[in-house]
Amino acid sequence: MNGNRIGTIFQVTTWGESHGTALGAVIDGCPSGLALVPEDFRAEMRRRQGGQISFATPRKEEDLVAIESGVFEGLTTGTPISLRIANASQKSKDYEEFRHIPRPGHADLTTYLKHGHRDHRGGGRSSARETAARVAAGVVAKKILARSGIEAAAWLHSAGPHRAEVDEARAIDLMPLSKLRELRDASPLGALASAAGQWLTQAEALREAGDSWGGSVRCRVEGLPAGVGEPVFDKLGATLAHALMSLPAAVAFEVGGGRAMSRAPGSAIRDAIGAGPRPLGNNHGGLLGGMTTGMPLFLGVSFHGPTSIPKSIDSVDLRDSQKTTLQVGGRHDAFPLPRVLPVVEAMVAITLVDALMRAGRIPEKL
Amino acid sequence: MNGNRIGTIFQVTTWGESHGTALGAVIDGCPSGLALVPEDFRAEMRRRQGGQISFATPRKEEDLVAIESGVFEGLTTGTPISLRIANASQKSKDYEEFRHIPRPGHADLTTYLKHGHRDHRGGGRSSARETAARVAAGVVAKKILARSGIEAAAWLHSAGPHRAEVDEARAIDLMPLSKLRELRDASPLGALASAAGQWLTQAEALREAGDSWGGSVRCRVEGLPAGVGEPVFDKLGATLAHALMSLPAAVAFEVGGGRAMSRAPGSAIRDAIGAGPRPLGNNHGGLLGGMTTGMPLFLGVSFHGPTSIPKSIDSVDLRDSQKTTLQVGGRHDAFPLPRVLPVVEAMVAITLVDALMRAGRIPEKL
Amino acid sequence: MNGNRIGTIFQVTTWGESHGTALGAVIDGCPSGLALVPEDFRAEMRRRQGGQISFATPRKEEDLVAIESGVFEGLTTGTPISLRIANASQKSKDYEEFRHIPRPGHADLTTYLKHGHRDHRGGGRSSARETAARVAAGVVAKKILARSGIEAAAWLHSAGPHRAEVDEARAIDLMPLSKLRELRDASPLGALASAAGQWLTQAEALREAGDSWGGSVRCRVEGLPAGVGEPVFDKLGATLAHALMSLPAAVAFEVGGGRAMSRAPGSAIRDAIGAGPRPLGNNHGGLLGGMTTGMPLFLGVSFHGPTSIPKSIDSVDLRDSQKTTLQVGGRHDAFPLPRVLPVVEAMVAITLVDALMRAGRIPEKL
Amino acid sequence: MNGNRIGTIFQVTTWGESHGTALGAVIDGCPSGLALVPEDFRAEMRRRQGGQISFATPRKEEDLVAIESGVFEGLTTGTPISLRIANASQKSKDYEEFRHIPRPGHADLTTYLKHGHRDHRGGGRSSARETAARVAAGVVAKKILARSGIEAAAWLHSAGPHRAEVDEARAIDLMPLSKLRELRDASPLGALASAAGQWLTQAEALREAGDSWGGSVRCRVEGLPAGVGEPVFDKLGATLAHALMSLPAAVAFEVGGGRAMSRAPGSAIRDAIGAGPRPLGNNHGGLLGGMTTGMPLFLGVSFHGPTSIPKSIDSVDLRDSQKTTLQVGGRHDAFPLPRVLPVVEAMVAITLVDALMRAGRIPEKL
Repeated sequence: MNGNRIGTIFQVTTWGESHGTALGAVIDGCPSGLALVPEDFRAEMRRRQGGQISFATPRKEEDLVAIESGVFEGLTTGTPISLRIANASQKSKDYEEFRHIPRPGHADLTTYLKHGHRDHRGGGRSSARETAARVAAGVVAKKILARSGIEAAAWLHSAGPHRAEVDEARAIDLMPLSKLRELRDASPLGALASAAGQWLTQAEALREAGDSWGGSVRCRVEGLPAGVGEPVFDKLGATLAHALMSLPAAVAFEVGGGRAMSRAPGSAIRDAIGAGPRPLGNNHGGLLGGMTTGMPLFLGVSFHGPTSIPKSIDSVDLRDSQKTTLQVGGRHDAFPLPRVLPVVEAMVAITLVDALMRAGRIPEKL
Repeated sequence: MNGNRIGTIFQVTTWGESHGTALGAVIDGCPSGLALVPEDFRAEMRRRQGGQISFATPRKEEDLVAIESGVFEGLTTGTPISLRIANASQKSKDYEEFRHIPRPGHADLTTYLKHGHRDHRGGGRSSARETAARVAAGVVAKKILARSGIEAAAWLHSAGPHRAEVDEARAIDLMPLSKLRELRDASPLGALASAAGQWLTQAEALREAGDSWGGSVRCRVEGLPAGVGEPVFDKLGATLAHALMSLPAAVAFEVGGGRAMSRAPGSAIRDAIGAGPRPLGNNHGGLLGGMTTGMPLFLGVSFHGPTSIPKSIDSVDLRDSQKTTLQVGGRHDAFPLPRVLPVVEAMVAITLVDALMRAGRIPEKL
Repeated sequence: MNGNRIGTIFQVTTWGESHGTALGAVIDGCPSGLALVPEDFRAEMRRRQGGQISFATPRKEEDLVAIESGVFEGLTTGTPISLRIANASQKSKDYEEFRHIPRPGHADLTTYLKHGHRDHRGGGRSSARETAARVAAGVVAKKILARSGIEAAAWLHSAGPHRAEVDEARAIDLMPLSKLRELRDASPLGALASAAGQWLTQAEALREAGDSWGGSVRCRVEGLPAGVGEPVFDKLGATLAHALMSLPAAVAFEVGGGRAMSRAPGSAIRDAIGAGPRPLGNNHGGLLGGMTTGMPLFLGVSFHGPTSIPKSIDSVDLRDSQKTTLQVGGRHDAFPLPRVLPVVEAMVAITLVDALMRAGRIPEKL
Repeated sequence: MNGNRIGTIFQVTTWGESHGTALGAVIDGCPSGLALVPEDFRAEMRRRQGGQISFATPRKEEDLVAIESGVFEGLTTGTPISLRIANASQKSKDYEEFRHIPRPGHADLTTYLKHGHRDHRGGGRSSARETAARVAAGVVAKKILARSGIEAAAWLHSAGPHRAEVDEARAIDLMPLSKLRELRDASPLGALASAAGQWLTQAEALREAGDSWGGSVRCRVEGLPAGVGEPVFDKLGATLAHALMSLPAAVAFEVGGGRAMSRAPGSAIRDAIGAGPRPLGNNHGGLLGGMTTGMPLFLGVSFHGPTSIPKSIDSVDLRDSQKTTLQVGGRHDAFPLPRVLPVVEAMVAITLVDALMRAGRIPEKL
């Protein structure tokens, strides 16, 4: 019970189902004095909706965020910020088929086993639509970070079986954040690899074939002060892992140099320490012992591909345990990773604001 | 501040430094009626100490766990269980050199930047010695799980650049847990790959060369009921990620099919649903939508290699910011992964007991 | 920062300002399978609005509660329940006077000192209007309790300087809950004392005179199982105190026999133990050592009188620190205690559901 | 389960039973850089033991506090502070009689009903001995407060049926804290009322008669900055109520003007606001809307008298439900209130440090 809150000081609680009246987030612990207006949310909400991508299944209506409390005359007051996103009218009938037949590879089955009664429409609370509330809360977190000169950018690192060549990936890692963001925003996939054009073509073919891809995202954060993160259990890498692995379809997480570090000899991954004091390299991706070093933070998350695809598959009818064959109709998300980028940034921003607050780096009054 | 507690109902707080008087754990939230005596801790504490491994640096004295509260006449009472492990006399002088010179690749620098004043001896609280308290708490968690027929086993999956062939790794994944544990315990590395004998030889050579390896661990859990895990933020994969990524040197985590799932088409990773109802395969490694399916749970964690190695490296003197060259003397841990196995199991067990309690599956009185 | 959540398993987060768009509550941790429809909220919301009382200042429009998530086809699903109460159009101009001049005896001053920027209209978040969200959440808690046969009833114990004679108060304490509730609901003040008619007359005179009264409320709970409450810090009396003392204007709390017990000799307050086993009396009001005994639970809360009264008083202008004299106009609440009764019951119910869940007495699926 | 932690940032977890090996507290969230040595604890531990009071039952051995982690070379390091107090050898046999027969008016019965298995010796975890760990943690909290010029003092306000005359009590409330502390420490009861000498005589007579008294304590805190406290649920009065009502035998709590405020008209309890801005009086006892005003904070707690008294009373044998008559032998605590004073101060200090941290007023590095 009750896993819908994240954060210890900057606390975000989300609510809402895919086909309910609305969904939203309540942020408890935002400092007063932060400028915040509804317009602040539009760009990020649009990124998540990803309307321009040909192989995705965007909702037609723009997700507008209403600020229902916590802001007065354009500034936060330190009281809970309630953000609400109305769900446009959805055809619930489309989902009648799944009322008693859980879709394989989805939370339908486990939700049924846990709660018995469930909202089956569009996956209910397990729908990726739930991430709209995360992105809305993330906008507030990003604005707090920006006040301290902290910025995060996520990009598409791999698409199904494809990723940038190692050397090119390293070049991407070293690219200035502003340059990186510019190139990413020019790419329909949010990818920086030179082969991304081919990935796009292949993703479109995949959609035609009724199949899908997962992939992985990388994120870099700049501007963090040193000493943020709370060992031993709330090391920054651990709380980031928690936040990112809570995303729908997340299957793997890495921080700093990640898996590559586990394969290298110890002598190859140490950075000498120089004046500052700070590390003279960044093999550890901005963290040592779970606390920030002041160098850029790196992390990666991998997601499996959507399982709501037209290809038919067997399931059971929950009423009589009879075998049945399901075919999910309509357009499907063949490759949602580009739309995941703002969601990853949102979870990173929410986690970092909380970590900064725990380290006493953000006052209750800005 | 205050990141030394994990769990929401089954709460484990650890304390203690590498070279302090003692270290320990307080467990708040253990049901009453569980049999618990000091002898229960010995096998796991020994596994963590790993005395028999030639390339490791075991402490000479056995870590004995004293139960200082919460148990009366051999049964838990439902009050906090205080576990205490005395630190045998250590030569603090060995560490005098590091009082003002942070060791590269360690938490020394970030601890200094965060707290200013620190216990520099042996890494203080950032020492891997801290995991002794985790293992002690894990013993209690494992005993609770065992009452419900739930068992976990971790094994060495890769050693530096080496891992089992794909087909062999799959065979390992399918091996009965009892068989797996038997083979693992017969291997000095805790590895099941047929090439592990060579890894051992190479790890010993690495130690001679003054270097080290990281690697990765996999863990499987059997006997879990369905419906455990609390979406959306406390999906079981997310809380496991939090727990495992809080371990010293952890750099990557995966759950279920992990990264491989992100590379496969969506059609290849769905398991049809059959009678039960339950999935007819286990591509998702026991989780769907962050809740258990009732199938075995799989996870993996990767660690970077130790950075306290004899090879010299530059650092700075914190008093005058002058450059200096450090050489860490004495024996070093060239490949500590085998000793990490019981630590991984402990964190998994602690996380699962909490998740089961949150789902109302463990009563306050056993 | 972030004090807007209560509960550890049954978590209630409230949001909203007196004159904002809306206010609401998110309940995270409600079991699935509970029948819940908007109509369930009406009676309690009306009790809080107290429209029929001559000396109060009810809002004209009825507070309607919209269920925006967590309920599907009339049953809870185990996901967060979002409750929203729209604020009818309010004349904000009425409050322009208080934008820069804090009202004495209010949170205006401390809110300004803490957050700088604030919503001054009607007290913003510090308004007693905030309790509407508590009452809404309390309706859900009461329905959960009712499933286990647990019922609570609060009544007016004292009005300003008046209270029932000691013997009459004792008789009230022993009255069956159904009888008590019946008499209370027949009284415009929610009082059971025979002198309550005079209190009403005096309260009306007080309103004419531009002044106000506080008073105290008592509450009794029946049907609780034994063993609920979590020593040492979350004894049931302590979590109830927390919940009740968080109400606007609360100044004192007592549990069980309360203050009277502190004046009696120890020999007079012990209840012998008989078969069951259970106490043969109820001097301790249903609790021993912070855990329920299975006997009825008693508690009391005292509130100071409203300070927004027509009598003029000095304050300062926050812009220039100049002294100024304030006179709060319009109708005022001379004696709001009768409207507080459902709020007290709501906080008691919320606290008890959480305590029952912590003791493992309420499953995640009803 | 798990109610043994208090605080959200400054987290104190206590453990230990009356007749176990030891008891202790782990403080997670203490800033680094605070001077702390074992000698710091002696005065407060002695106050709690109250050896000089003729009618109390002091333990013979002094309670010595060992610092087992979190402090290095006399300064805190920001890691968990583990405090341990060994229990001197106790005669457990004295309690054999109560193994199966719960003492009326004690937690014996409810502990049995909740947990089944329990440590019956001396009340186990429900013993007032548990407060030794609270006092130890309170010493650390007091030292943190002292760094900010914040001081608290508690005194005996009433003894059984006796209290100071109203005018004298008001004079006490206005006495400078240093003067108050001086007079209090000169009184064997910790009382400031002129009649306290008679109370002492009567308490001694009460002990002879095999009976006991409760009473009430008042506490004043000076030096608090304005704006501390987190509405709406964690108003400072609410978190203080939680902390104080968690003490053994606590039955009532009041904050600010307390119950007297509920009997006065609203016009009599408002303080005009003057330059600062701050209230020109202190009717509300330092709090408005749950946040500090910068004026002295006042609170009171009442306790019932000890129920372990020589007078015999009926109970049941838990094995066969047979009625039996109990007589608790040995010396008894006829009036423990004087020893409660340092415990009240400890809980107040712990709560205030946490509240200050939540308001961002204490850095992670002092």
